[in-house]
Amino acid sequence: MLILIDERGKKYLLNSDQDFHNDLGIIKKEDLQGSNAGDTLETHLGKHIKVVKADVNDLIELMQRRCSILLPKDIGIVISHTGLGCGDRVVDAGTGAGAIALHFANVVGNEGEVHSYEIREDFAQIAQSNIDQFQLDNVEIKNKDIKEGIDEEDVDLVFLDLPKPWEMLESVYGALKTGGWLAVYAPYIEQVQILHRIAKKVGFEEVTTIECILREIEVKVKGTRPKTRMVGHTGYLSFARKL
Amino acid sequence: MLILIDERGKKYLLNSDQDFHNDLGIIKKEDLQGSNAGDTLETHLGKHIKVVKADVNDLIELMQRRCSILLPKDIGIVISHTGLGCGDRVVDAGTGAGAIALHFANVVGNEGEVHSYEIREDFAQIAQSNIDQFQLDNVEIKNKDIKEGIDEEDVDLVFLDLPKPWEMLESVYGALKTGGWLAVYAPYIEQVQILHRIAKKVGFEEVTTIECILREIEVKVKGTRPKTRMVGHTGYLSFARKL
Amino acid sequence: MLILIDERGKKYLLNSDQDFHNDLGIIKKEDLQGSNAGDTLETHLGKHIKVVKADVNDLIELMQRRCSILLPKDIGIVISHTGLGCGDRVVDAGTGAGAIALHFANVVGNEGEVHSYEIREDFAQIAQSNIDQFQLDNVEIKNKDIKEGIDEEDVDLVFLDLPKPWEMLESVYGALKTGGWLAVYAPYIEQVQILHRIAKKVGFEEVTTIECILREIEVKVKGTRPKTRMVGHTGYLSFARKL
Amino acid sequence: MLILIDERGKKYLLNSDQDFHNDLGIIKKEDLQGSNAGDTLETHLGKHIKVVKADVNDLIELMQRRCSILLPKDIGIVISHTGLGCGDRVVDAGTGAGAIALHFANVVGNEGEVHSYEIREDFAQIAQSNIDQFQLDNVEIKNKDIKEGIDEEDVDLVFLDLPKPWEMLESVYGALKTGGWLAVYAPYIEQVQILHRIAKKVGFEEVTTIECILREIEVKVKGTRPKTRMVGHTGYLSFARKL
Repeated sequence: MLILIDERGKKYLLNSDQDFHNDLGIIKKEDLQGSNAGDTLETHLGKHIKVVKADVNDLIELMQRRCSILLPKDIGIVISHTGLGCGDRVVDAGTGAGAIALHFANVVGNEGEVHSYEIREDFAQIAQSNIDQFQLDNVEIKNKDIKEGIDEEDVDLVFLDLPKPWEMLESVYGALKTGGWLAVYAPYIEQVQILHRIAKKVGFEEVTTIECILREIEVKVKGTRPKTRMVGHTGYLSFARKL
Repeated sequence: MLILIDERGKKYLLNSDQDFHNDLGIIKKEDLQGSNAGDTLETHLGKHIKVVKADVNDLIELMQRRCSILLPKDIGIVISHTGLGCGDRVVDAGTGAGAIALHFANVVGNEGEVHSYEIREDFAQIAQSNIDQFQLDNVEIKNKDIKEGIDEEDVDLVFLDLPKPWEMLESVYGALKTGGWLAVYAPYIEQVQILHRIAKKVGFEEVTTIECILREIEVKVKGTRPKTRMVGHTGYLSFARKL
Repeated sequence: MLILIDERGKKYLLNSDQDFHNDLGIIKKEDLQGSNAGDTLETHLGKHIKVVKADVNDLIELMQRRCSILLPKDIGIVISHTGLGCGDRVVDAGTGAGAIALHFANVVGNEGEVHSYEIREDFAQIAQSNIDQFQLDNVEIKNKDIKEGIDEEDVDLVFLDLPKPWEMLESVYGALKTGGWLAVYAPYIEQVQILHRIAKKVGFEEVTTIECILREIEVKVKGTRPKTRMVGHTGYLSFARKL
Repeated sequence: MLILIDERGKKYLLNSDQDFHNDLGIIKKEDLQGSNAGDTLETHLGKHIKVVKADVNDLIELMQRRCSILLPKDIGIVISHTGLGCGDRVVDAGTGAGAIALHFANVVGNEGEVHSYEIREDFAQIAQSNIDQFQLDNVEIKNKDIKEGIDEEDVDLVFLDLPKPWEMLESVYGALKTGGWLAVYAPYIEQVQILHRIAKKVGFEEVTTIECILREIEVKVKGTRPKTRMVGHTGYLSFARKL
């Protein structure tokens, strides 16, 4: 998937079905159609616009509505801790605007599948339109309460970002492959405490919780230091494995 | 890929070409051949052994020699920050025992490729034997100094875990796709400072550095708290993009 | 020293030389003169105002101009790491508005002394007026460049919050008692690096640097969690001892 | 108070009532009696021994039995957050070996007082002998359960390091001066949750909890970095004020 980046760093999805136009000028669709990552196009006003291979973070940046979105630090740790890979089958809930589903879809690829449950119809629609826009065939948005049951089987990863993630642990356990992982994102420590108790009761093993504190380092001529302001807490990440 | 987990939690690669035997007994290769994730096999001594779908962390745990290995927290953030996905092309150096190459290979899948440079012959051999053991077709271990040049083109991610990562930034830049990422792991702040300067000079954009502090939370009957001892620092993660 | 706290939590210095009046009414100076910590006074409009024993943080909150002020976390660690106590002699530079001098004065008491160097005349005046307002006899504000020399001898603690703290380490060493401490606050890691080198050259021992990351915990009905936003970095604290 | 430091960095209390002798030789008491901080004495074997002004951390290092001891980072933040100063009156419980009482005594000085409650007789005796050894007149060790009541009044700071600090909050409230502070050290988040609820019920205001994560920075020729291993968690610090 390609995007355009103009001279100000602003990003746009490359859509070669129509001419591109913004306040810096117009590029004809014929020029867009033949372009590749690395090309620099010119608008009729002489402004330069780069064609760039989009990564998943670019797509999320271009999504229509973003709700509250998990930070890459938390998504990345879910991926590496559970060993999510190309071809895997994922269930996630709730979808929100679909950002985490995009990340999972990016990793599992076309041999894999992401089934994303969202109870709210408005969110499910936004997520669907985002998925459509990026032409992803491996994501299914389901406007359904995951508490009513998980339709999928032999799943490698179930990811829950819900107020009461402990309510559906039995069906999560049933849906997972042996060796598969449950990952839960929860901001409050009380959620973690209940989750541990129920997860063990349901039969999960290797139940652990971690928290990632991310610091950005400023490297300037004036000197090097961690940034003055930072995100203090997003959520706890809990993991449990079906063995 | 399947592994066996015995009653003590010890893990073994499932190799159905021969009988399995450890101190808990023997399982005949005929029984191994027909087994699936989720099955429980029994040794001739009546001990139970589970068949489990391995994740990449299981494989790394089973690797022959582990050298110093990047922690999942750092690997995960490299994956999510750069948007690494199924089908991507990766170059990494130095290979070490191949742990990070395994993580990358797991994400990029068979449509993708990992080319891993290692200057030391002994490490390259260990890494190759680990890759062979797991029958990965998408990883190439190269016993070559990456300073002499990068053979690959149109690469999505170049990952460097080397003492002087700034020495080959021009060839990294040349090897990357427009939109591709450089990611660098370096324990010392002096390395970060030099890297920022050279990366900008070479033409990289969005040059940033972060550090992930990971806390494990203990959830026990006695109470909930972060663990008393923790890893204080592994390395800084720096990112730069070719745009 | 007493302060008044009105029904909205607003604080005022108790000055019994004159009537107190704000928008909640008037309290006559005769009533103020006889009041003690714990009393509740009433304005002529029937509003309640409490008399409270001020702590040093109340005074700093009431200071005229606050410039950039060290956080209690950093001040406290300087005090406990160097074992600052009642009766000690302290030199600090630069003074700023005098907040850290107030903290030191609070600990060393009337048997101790704080000598605070400030190169800028405007800051020195502000600091002096703050000290006067709180009627502290144990703080001397000096409008002088500490690089020109330290007048005091047999000092227990020298605290430096300056851009180039390494420039005066020889005179700091001369001013300190054997067993006394140098403490330095510096935001950039480059400052720390130079400081370590020079401090060892000058003869200091036990040269160390620490950083304190402070997290506030929210305990609410909704749940318990670290705050979403936090201060990511204030400064590094370096210590060195004359032995 | 003076200590001796030998050529290996080993510390001893200077006791001028008798000759000093260790494996590096003997120093006669006459030589000790006339010595001052900064002097270098010589043993009869020609070894050098320095006379140094002890700080409170030296004394704690020399204490007979250390039990588990609060780290300076936590003690310092208690001091600075509550504005503890020279002349203040402190109650603490439980005493342990008396390390925190030593820190408080060091700050409040001879015009101040520290009353330290310890329920276990053996700990109280150890603490008493430590206090005696350092000839502190401003610390009273009480072998008494603080739950039975606090004898002191008009206290500036009550510090609790107990498994159930919420059990005596009413008597703490009664003992404190208006404007005085309660500070609580507790390792588990469950303790913090109960404490907040009870403290508010009893009438405390400004109830807050913080946690200090301390990182040590290594500055070496090889490079600068936070230490690989660190203390991940000691305890939460909660504060509440009587207003």
